[in-house]
Amino acid sequence: MAVYTEVTDEALAAFLTDYDLGSMVAFRGIAEGVENSNFSLRTTAGDFILTLYEKRVDPAELPWFLGLMEHLAKRGIVCPLPVRGRDGAALRHLAGRHAAITTFLPGVWPRRVRPEHCGPLGAALAGLHLAGGDYQPTRRNALGPDGWGPLLARSGGRADEVRPGLADELRRTLDGILAAWPDGLPKGHIHADLFPDNVFFLDGRLSGLIDFYFAATDILAYDIAVCLNAWCFEADFSFNVTKATAMLRAYNATRPLSDTERAALPVLCQGAAIRFLLTRLYDWLNTPPGALVTRKDPLEFLRKLRFHLTAGEGGYGL
Amino acid sequence: MAVYTEVTDEALAAFLTDYDLGSMVAFRGIAEGVENSNFSLRTTAGDFILTLYEKRVDPAELPWFLGLMEHLAKRGIVCPLPVRGRDGAALRHLAGRHAAITTFLPGVWPRRVRPEHCGPLGAALAGLHLAGGDYQPTRRNALGPDGWGPLLARSGGRADEVRPGLADELRRTLDGILAAWPDGLPKGHIHADLFPDNVFFLDGRLSGLIDFYFAATDILAYDIAVCLNAWCFEADFSFNVTKATAMLRAYNATRPLSDTERAALPVLCQGAAIRFLLTRLYDWLNTPPGALVTRKDPLEFLRKLRFHLTAGEGGYGL
Repeated sequence: MAVYTEVTDEALAAFLTDYDLGSMVAFRGIAEGVENSNFSLRTTAGDFILTLYEKRVDPAELPWFLGLMEHLAKRGIVCPLPVRGRDGAALRHLAGRHAAITTFLPGVWPRRVRPEHCGPLGAALAGLHLAGGDYQPTRRNALGPDGWGPLLARSGGRADEVRPGLADELRRTLDGILAAWPDGLPKGHIHADLFPDNVFFLDGRLSGLIDFYFAATDILAYDIAVCLNAWCFEADFSFNVTKATAMLRAYNATRPLSDTERAALPVLCQGAAIRFLLTRLYDWLNTPPGALVTRKDPLEFLRKLRFHLTAGEGGYGL
Repeated sequence: MAVYTEVTDEALAAFLTDYDLGSMVAFRGIAEGVENSNFSLRTTAGDFILTLYEKRVDPAELPWFLGLMEHLAKRGIVCPLPVRGRDGAALRHLAGRHAAITTFLPGVWPRRVRPEHCGPLGAALAGLHLAGGDYQPTRRNALGPDGWGPLLARSGGRADEVRPGLADELRRTLDGILAAWPDGLPKGHIHADLFPDNVFFLDGRLSGLIDFYFAATDILAYDIAVCLNAWCFEADFSFNVTKATAMLRAYNATRPLSDTERAALPVLCQGAAIRFLLTRLYDWLNTPPGALVTRKDPLEFLRKLRFHLTAGEGGYGL
C-alpha cells in the first residue's frame, strides 16, 4: 500500500488553487506502489495522480525525474506528464512533502504476464531509451554496481537470518559479477524498475509506463536485464525463453543490440538479480512489524540469480 | 490499505463480460477501507467500485447489505448502487471471493472535521433512517450490546497488556452500560460505522455515504451515538459541543428525537465508545506483525468513553 501521508481536504483544495485544474471532484489513496504516497485525483478538468514524495526520494533529484518524464512525454512515450502550476513549476509542496500532479494513464497492469505482453514491452523499452537520448542532465544510478557492495554491507551478517550461508554466497557471487561487469556498453537514461506493475495495457496494447523514480543514467542493456528478471520467470522460477525471445526481438527491432551488448546479457542479468535481491534483503531485515508495506521475499531473486549464473548468452533466446 | 486479494487482468476481463459495462479502461487498488478489497474500476461505461468480500463478512449476509444499498439508493440516499449482471444478480464471484460492482460516488471524505460538516451529516443520517423504514429484511447487530461481553472475553486478561487495569475497568464499565441499556427505543436499519471516511463531501455539500457492511437493525439513536463518537471529538479528545449541536439539530429537524431518545444519549454514546474500544482492542492484540492494516489505538475510545460516563444528557448540546 502506499499512502504514508494524509492530506486534509482543505490543504488539497488550497493546493489546487495553484493550478488551472478547476475544483476537486474525487480523491482516493491508491494501494499500489511502495515508495511514495499516491492518490487518484479527479477535478473538473479531468483525472490526475497526486504524488507525495516520501523518505527514499532525495528532493534534490525530483526535478531530474520530472524533467525526464516531461521530456519523454513530449517525444511520444506514454508516461505520466507532470502538470505545471500557474507559476510554471511542477514540483510543489503539500502536507509537509514535496508533491507533484501528473496526468492519469488509462490501462491495467498485467497481474499474470503472458508472452504477448513481452513484445510490446521490449519495443516500449527500446523506444524509451531512444527518446531519452537527448535529455541532457544525468543521474548516477545509486542502485547500480557501485552501490551493491555497500548495500550488502548494510545487511551485514544478518543475511544468514534469512537463509544460512546466504551472506557468504552473496559476497562471493557479487565479487564475480563486479569483476566481470562490462565496460564501454552504450549508456543512456534507463527506467531501472520496469516491473509489470509499472506497465499498463489496454485492449491488448501497451498503454503507458509509470513510476520513473528509480530512473538513472546507466548501461541501456542493463534495463533489458531488469525486464528479463521481472517479466520472464514463471511462478516456479523457471525461465520462460518464449517471453524473453519476444521481448528481446521487439527491443532489437527498435534499437538493435550490438554483439557486445548481447554477450553481456548474462552478467547484466546477474547484476539486476542481485540488485533486487539486496534491496529486498535489506527491507526484509529492516521492515518493522506492523508496517504498511508487504515485505517481498528476497530469495525469489536468489533463484533467478542462480539461473543467470549458468544461462550463458544463448540462454535468453535472442 | 485494503487490497488483500489480487485480481488478474484476464479474470477481471472475463468477469466484466457478465455485465453490460463495456470493456475495462483502468483498474487500481484503493488504499482506504480495512475490511474488504476495493478497486477503482473504469470501463467504457463509466466509473465503478469493485469490492471483493474478505474474511470478516459472512457471505450469507451479503444479499442483505446489497439489498439495503439498492433500497436506499432508490429512495434518494446517495450511496453506492449495486450494479446487476446481465442475469440480474449483483452478488457474483471473482478471484475466489464473493464480489460486487457498485457505482462510483464523487466527493472527498473530510480528513479534518469542521462544524459545517456536522449539520449535513446529521440530516443525512436521519434521512438514511427514514429511507430504510420500509426495507423489510432485518439483520441482527452482531456488534451490538449482546456482542460486547463475548468480545471482551475474547481479548481476555490481555487487555492489561495495553494498559494495566484496563481489563477490570472495561468489565465494570460494560456491566454498568448493559444494566442501563435502554429498552423500547425506536429501531430500524442503522449504518453503525458512519465515521468521516465513510462520508463524502463535494463543494461544501454532503455528496454520499459509503461502506454499509456494518449496517444492522438496531436502535436508531445508537447510530447518532456512533457519529457523536466519530465526529465530535477533537484531536486532544476534548468534546466539541458545537459540532454535536449542529449534528443533533439537523438530525432532529429531519427525524425528531423523542424525550426518551434524548435521555438515552449518554448511555448510547457509552455503548458506542465501548464497541469501538473492544474491536480495536481485539485487533490491537491480534494483528500479526507485518500485517497490511494500520492498528488503531483502542485507548482513544477509552478517553471518549470516560467523557460519556460523566457527560449527562445536557452534555451533547441538544
